Parts: sequence; structure tokens; C-alpha cells
Amino acid sequence: MEYPSLLIERAVEEISKLPGIGKKTALRLVLHLLRQPANFTADLLLALKDLRENIKYCTTCHIIADTEKCTCQNAYRDTSVICVVEDTPDVLAIRSTGKYNGLFHVLGGRISPVDGIGPENVNIESLINRVKSEDQVKEVILALSTTIEGDTTSFYITKLLKEQNVKVTTIARGIPVGSELEFADEVTLGRSIASRMLFSQD
Amino acid sequence: MEYPSLLIERAVEEISKLPGIGKKTALRLVLHLLRQPANFTADLLLALKDLRENIKYCTTCHIIADTEKCTCQNAYRDTSVICVVEDTPDVLAIRSTGKYNGLFHVLGGRISPVDGIGPENVNIESLINRVKSEDQVKEVILALSTTIEGDTTSFYITKLLKEQNVKVTTIARGIPVGSELEFADEVTLGRSIASRMLFSQD
Repeated sequence: MEYPSLLIERAVEEISKLPGIGKKTALRLVLHLLRQPANFTADLLLALKDLRENIKYCTTCHIIADTEKCTCQNAYRDTSVICVVEDTPDVLAIRSTGKYNGLFHVLGGRISPVDGIGPENVNIESLINRVKSEDQVKEVILALSTTIEGDTTSFYITKLLKEQNVKVTTIARGIPVGSELEFADEVTLGRSIASRMLFSQD
Repeated sequence: MEYPSLLIERAVEEISKLPGIGKKTALRLVLHLLRQPANFTADLLLALKDLRENIKYCTTCHIIADTEKCTCQNAYRDTSVICVVEDTPDVLAIRSTGKYNGLFHVLGGRISPVDGIGPENVNIESLINRVKSEDQVKEVILALSTTIEGDTTSFYITKLLKEQNVKVTTIARGIPVGSELEFADEVTLGRSIASRMLFSQD
């Protein structure tokens, strides 16, 4: 498409580098910004600038935070259990279920030899050190994707934690709540039969 | 949702003010920015800042442009016809058809009494002056939305141009190319029969 202005072309180019945003959407956003008062754009830019320059990662659990010590060690949390996830959105998703009140550990990715991501590229070492140094930790819950990479990472962590005195569990894999059996794939259905459990409404 | 950081919360808040972007998408974009090198965000912010601060509107045709005189008066354009549109994306859409080589006039909106937008809030007066002062203009094509507001605006402009020596036309309303008759609404189908024309493959 031929843009009427180089400024627009450059803005569209930059915005459409974001995931899930194509050139048409980018143009729509650009024109929206131009129709709003100038401080609308200024506020947006300032928020993004502050974010990129001042964001920290908690040195304990690696969650994105405003300081290097996040609220992960709050007194009201159950410090005997650590839930291992791939990224920060997973933390938010698990928190919003209201079913978990323990600690978290963000790996920042998963082991994927195909993409050149080895165990040293994700926060696995600090997890092991954490389990070693914090005596109160009794259980590590692996809440990773049910993909080859996720399972590889889970196996690797399980192996490393074998010598430690902790229980290693994984979140249940099975039929999603509210879905019909006939639409489930065979692997999921097979796993859900193998991992059958006592009936409860919870 | 409870965010792990105030910086993230603020960035999500600002991004989700954009049209078509909810909080979940905004969070995904924010996390994407954090995973990219810092200059990725810097380039984006600079492009948007430049855009907002330096964009101009052509004083003749009101198209968004880098200068106050856009390329609308290029020698190779057909200056005998002005196509009136609501906004800049319409200009781009019509240009990309390759079927029009005349001038444009961007109204910057349409008359909509319900939203408090009267004829004085859109660039109608400058259109009339343009037609009056530029003798070579022989036709004004109205390419506005087929909504009540679009039609109201078209009627208003047609009335004002009645005394001028120009032909006022509107783009054809009918069945979109490639669509089935049975899915067309009655009004469109009715109009397309009333405005029937000689068959051509063009």
C-alpha cells in the first residue's frame, strides 16, 4: 500500500512488528492516535518508556516486577510449595484461579534443542539452588506446556530434583472442564483415563 | 487481573485504550516488548513520537501528509475530478484500486447530528471553495459510507454544489464482486436493480 506520508509509513512499519498486528490494523491504530488529543499518545509513550527502562525481574522467582524483590515472599503465602511455570502470564493465570497460594518460579522459557535453547538458557539452576537452600520447600509443582519442549523441561527438572527431599508433581492433564468427550483427542483422553481420580465437584 | 508490576499495569492500561485491543492482548504486547532488545521499543516510541508531533494535513485536500502541500497536485493527476471521502484510509483504498487518477478531498468525518457533528465540523466549506476557485474541476465524486450519516452528508454537499457548474456523482452501490445474490440484503439488491447498467467485464 502506498502511504500518504513517510511518518505514517514508519509508524505502521514499527507497530506491525508486534505479534498479531498486521499493516491494516497498524494503520488503523496510527490514524486513531492522530484523531486523539496529543497527550493520549504522550501518555502511551511514557508508560512504555518507563516500562522498558525500569522493569526488574525478581532475583528469587524471576517474575517481572517493579523491584528486584517481588511480593513472592509475602507472609501469607504457603512457602512449602513452588509452582514452576514458563512465563509471567502463566503466573497471572494460576493466581487468578484462586486455587493456589504458594510460591512461583518463572523459567523464562523451556528447553528446546531445535531452537538452540538449552537448560542453561532458562532459570533451572536457580530453581535447584532455591530448593536446596530453602528447607521449608516440600513440593515442586511443574505447570509447563503439554508439548514436547514442555515435557522435556519437566523431565529434566524432575531428574535434577531426584536427590532433593521434595515431592515433584505436575498439574493434571485431562479433559477441559465444560468440553465434550467426542471432541477430545486420543492422547488427552487416554491420559485422562490412566490418571483417573475419585469424583469430586471441586 | 492482578498484575505483578505497576509498570506493567500502567502500560497495559494505556495500550488497551487503543481500538480493538483488550487487556489480554495488551499484556501479550507488553511482554513481547520486554523480551525484545531495548532498541525495539525505542524505535517504536520514536516513530510514534515523530508521527504525532510532525504530521501535517494538506491545506488543499486535507489528506494526512508530511508537509502542508501534499502530492495531490502532481502534474500527472487528472485535475478535472475531485473524489470526496470521509477519511485518509478511504483515499488509500481508492488509490490502490488503480481505477482513479483524480484529486481527493478528505472531509475528516461525516455530518451526524446525533453525535453533535454539524456541517461546520467537517471540511465541506473548503470543498465548495475549491470547486468555486478551480475552474478545471468538472466533476465531484461522492465516495461516502452508505449509512444515514454518509447519505446525509452526500445530500448536503450535492445541494451546496447545485449552483456550481460541476457534475456531482456517487460511487455505485450494488452487489459486491464475488458475492452470491441470495446473501444480499433487500435494499442493496433493490438499488442494484434500479441502477442496472450495460454488462461489461471491467
